[in-house]
Amino acid sequence: MAGDVYERVMDLARRRGFVWPTSEAYGAVAGFIDYGPLGAMMKRRIEDTWRNFFVIREGFYEIECPTIGQEAIYVASGHVKGFTDKMFQCPHCGEFFRADHVVENGGHCEHAAALDEESLARELAEIPCPVCNETIGEVTVFGFSLMFRTSIGPGSQRTGYLRPETAQGIFTDFARLLRFYRDKLPFGVTQIGKSYRNEISPRQGMIRLREFTQAEAEIFVHPDRKEHPDFDRYADYRMPLLGYPAQLAGTGATEMSMAEAVRSGTVANEYVAYYLALTHEFLMRVGISPDRLRFRQHLPDERAHYAEDCWDAECLSDRFGWVETVGIADRTDYDLRAHASHSGEPFTVFIQYPEPIRRTETRVVPRMGALGPRFRGSAKAIAEAIAATDPASIPGDGGFVVTVGGNAIEIGPELYDVREVEVEVQGEEVMPHVIEPSYGIDRILYSILEHSFGEEQLEDGSRTVLHLPPAIAPIQVAVFPLMSRDGMDGLALEIVRELKSSGLMAEYDDSGAIGRRYRRQDEIGTPFAVTVDYDSLEDGTVTLRDRDTMRQVRLPRSRLALTCIELCTGRLRFNDLE
Amino acid sequence: MAGDVYERVMDLARRRGFVWPTSEAYGAVAGFIDYGPLGAMMKRRIEDTWRNFFVIREGFYEIECPTIGQEAIYVASGHVKGFTDKMFQCPHCGEFFRADHVVENGGHCEHAAALDEESLARELAEIPCPVCNETIGEVTVFGFSLMFRTSIGPGSQRTGYLRPETAQGIFTDFARLLRFYRDKLPFGVTQIGKSYRNEISPRQGMIRLREFTQAEAEIFVHPDRKEHPDFDRYADYRMPLLGYPAQLAGTGATEMSMAEAVRSGTVANEYVAYYLALTHEFLMRVGISPDRLRFRQHLPDERAHYAEDCWDAECLSDRFGWVETVGIADRTDYDLRAHASHSGEPFTVFIQYPEPIRRTETRVVPRMGALGPRFRGSAKAIAEAIAATDPASIPGDGGFVVTVGGNAIEIGPELYDVREVEVEVQGEEVMPHVIEPSYGIDRILYSILEHSFGEEQLEDGSRTVLHLPPAIAPIQVAVFPLMSRDGMDGLALEIVRELKSSGLMAEYDDSGAIGRRYRRQDEIGTPFAVTVDYDSLEDGTVTLRDRDTMRQVRLPRSRLALTCIELCTGRLRFNDLE
Repeated sequence: MAGDVYERVMDLARRRGFVWPTSEAYGAVAGFIDYGPLGAMMKRRIEDTWRNFFVIREGFYEIECPTIGQEAIYVASGHVKGFTDKMFQCPHCGEFFRADHVVENGGHCEHAAALDEESLARELAEIPCPVCNETIGEVTVFGFSLMFRTSIGPGSQRTGYLRPETAQGIFTDFARLLRFYRDKLPFGVTQIGKSYRNEISPRQGMIRLREFTQAEAEIFVHPDRKEHPDFDRYADYRMPLLGYPAQLAGTGATEMSMAEAVRSGTVANEYVAYYLALTHEFLMRVGISPDRLRFRQHLPDERAHYAEDCWDAECLSDRFGWVETVGIADRTDYDLRAHASHSGEPFTVFIQYPEPIRRTETRVVPRMGALGPRFRGSAKAIAEAIAATDPASIPGDGGFVVTVGGNAIEIGPELYDVREVEVEVQGEEVMPHVIEPSYGIDRILYSILEHSFGEEQLEDGSRTVLHLPPAIAPIQVAVFPLMSRDGMDGLALEIVRELKSSGLMAEYDDSGAIGRRYRRQDEIGTPFAVTVDYDSLEDGTVTLRDRDTMRQVRLPRSRLALTCIELCTGRLRFNDLE
Repeated sequence: MAGDVYERVMDLARRRGFVWPTSEAYGAVAGFIDYGPLGAMMKRRIEDTWRNFFVIREGFYEIECPTIGQEAIYVASGHVKGFTDKMFQCPHCGEFFRADHVVENGGHCEHAAALDEESLARELAEIPCPVCNETIGEVTVFGFSLMFRTSIGPGSQRTGYLRPETAQGIFTDFARLLRFYRDKLPFGVTQIGKSYRNEISPRQGMIRLREFTQAEAEIFVHPDRKEHPDFDRYADYRMPLLGYPAQLAGTGATEMSMAEAVRSGTVANEYVAYYLALTHEFLMRVGISPDRLRFRQHLPDERAHYAEDCWDAECLSDRFGWVETVGIADRTDYDLRAHASHSGEPFTVFIQYPEPIRRTETRVVPRMGALGPRFRGSAKAIAEAIAATDPASIPGDGGFVVTVGGNAIEIGPELYDVREVEVEVQGEEVMPHVIEPSYGIDRILYSILEHSFGEEQLEDGSRTVLHLPPAIAPIQVAVFPLMSRDGMDGLALEIVRELKSSGLMAEYDDSGAIGRRYRRQDEIGTPFAVTVDYDSLEDGTVTLRDRDTMRQVRLPRSRLALTCIELCTGRLRFNDLE
């Protein structure tokens, strides 16, 4: 068949209604896709599987924030200033390009993303333009904001941005979320939704989208307590890890348990290790092939300066190589600190000590004997204001001003003492650290399609098949009447209704030979097919066929729905039926 | 308690994590909200219930299109030109307003939306500004586009818009969808997702959002076959309909069956009637109170000129009156025709006749005897080009030009005849009509909160309660240990895990007196609560408490999960347990 695997997978995806170019009638726009009926169904199943891990099992509630955010959020987060790509325009054909990509593809440099504008321009001078093929020559490289910008409301034109990540919505809701979780750490919050990135010139199909779906969890933990309370779950979970020292040394990944990974310092702490393992388990569950999956640690010059540790789950693609699909990072208190300093709100948690701590502090202590006669009714309020004054702020002459009930009152040294007092401290305000596993749903979906894609020679021809896990397949059971007459069609339709009301996605098909109908379902990854024949009308049994082995068993219709549910949830395997 | 019902509901919604102002730390922006943990869960349950009706039962696959669309789509759909509100700026305080709202609230006119700019300006002159209270005086009213605008990619600044409705994505995918449904009518397609409306000055909380969630179905039907194939399902379904003649006459709604509604002409056709009934059933299911729900037909001057019929499902709100939550319209072929004419693509379905039809048509018939000798090898191709010529396009002198293989060839009258020939026609190209039920999920969610909200006097105090249907409640079962010791806490946590793995959302709470814990759960609408006490440790039974009746039964723990599932799906009622 013509084309590489990517082309064959995308051809299937287009033909069968998984993924379409968007608004094709008007000429599709790069970086945007439509999920067709089967793709949207599969995407929802991936998202729901993710929720089963994060929302149901981990207990991290999901929230839903707007995709349009006010400018202040993204000034604080650093996106307004820093979320840019270095761009140039070809002086010959006028096309725009990402400078680092062209330099890397031109073979001039491996990590061009780290170069500054001038160095990129120097490298580009020698490289032919990827579109018009003229040598680029003298060119200016400049930053291009990757945020889509819009205006909210009329008049003053309040600036809004389409969010570049779902995470900021969770951070800005921190105070409300903390209250929801009754002021205790750790707690986790999730969000699944659209994010946006105004790519300069996206040319990689589903891998580089301008509008994409993220599933993110933000887990707020005490900065000094990064032992995961459920670490036992994954302590013995083994998976290959490609740490940064191994990358620098050019050696490969090492398989190890999560307990070893933390003990050896390969992974920074139990929280990061826990979500590495959870991510591995999740990606297996949705159909990523274990031998085309790796976990790679960011190199020191690749990692954000504030991050304590950062790993990417990468899926191998025939055309694109190792593609980042999930990022797992310990972001420390970077995000909350940024929002605290820009908004003036605290973004902290009050952590009560197990026992109050007694310590001596220097305080300003009002002299009530002097205040009473001078201020009478106001003496108490003024005394409180004096007591709240920072001793370090008092000037040399000992005079300062307090404001009580809107009045400024001059306080002289005769009205107070500064001395050491013993105080009882109940606890402290702590700014939590954030552990963030962040999933790119579209890239995961594409990787599953590619990893599950097979072209297989059979005795009587060949078939294209998607070996999707039953829980992810858009259609779970296909139901065929052998022929659409003599009541077989009616019985088959009845079975479809029955399966649907058991919560399975079932589809009826009576068009063409049975063999052709099997092929059609294989191609969209339907794991099970039921055939209703003349015997079904006689004895109430039907044939159940397994997509992967193409084997068939006969079973009573009364057991069909439950059997299919058990097969789809993995509680039963097909060969248990044989 | 202070405030009207809206304020009390929104106070609860904020306090308990249903709905929050967005990015509050930076000053919330009007028209945007965050769904907190409980609100997002409830919203997903509403959407999933909708999918159970439309995707699972009706078989209308869901697709997912980008929220950013290219300009051509919205030029074709008419939004670029017509999706505007008439606006003015107060000359005294500088605030912007929707002109029709101010005129209506000023009591000057009931249907101000129908007035033109000049008439609105005349009315406004006498009205005090709603913000600064100065009489507005001379003012200009002008159109303000309600679409959020942005730029896609660098350089040429390709204009994009945030979609004002999800429907256009379905229309522009029509050709692909038709193929997916194997070129047959009718078929339906759904989409749930964000839509945007850059309101001038939204002041109605969740009722008028700038970013909101729509659930839309577009059902493509043959224009001459508006009998719904499953109409039997709802033929006898009775509900009150407020047709437009009743509105004009000032009489109330009439309860009737859908069969009567179609027969009497109250509703235009079976399709519209079917989705009116389905919508009524759906809204009941998610917790809309039947006595605060009405279906109102658009008045002739309110209905879009192309629509054959249009109804709104309206929910009564204490503060806002009747609020439109669902629109159900027969949009005829308006949308597909607009896209066909702007894109040049056909947007039609080939409908094969049951039998081919024979009819005579005037055709251009090439004279092969004359063409052969003159054009030799090209004669056949030229003959075909001649035969494809429209006879009406031939000028008086009988000479015309055909293009074959890039060459223009002059054809004289000696090379053909024009005559009546009998042709066999297999079928015809038909542009389908569209039936569109369109749901505003946020307004539905708000209406459910308001309709389910209760403040009830009890013997020992009072309680605030949300009487949410169990399938919509964010938390379905709360589990309390009587005290968090002696193993009751461990058993309760085990029960939580068990309920969660049965697919129920369960929550553990051991804080405060049992009565207080009940109140906390009542307030967020949790339908069932389980208490683990000393007897539970002895005999393995637990107490199950019903939110609405506050009655309790004791049952063995082994039956708990199944019982809760049956209660939540409605297969069992609480008093069956007593």
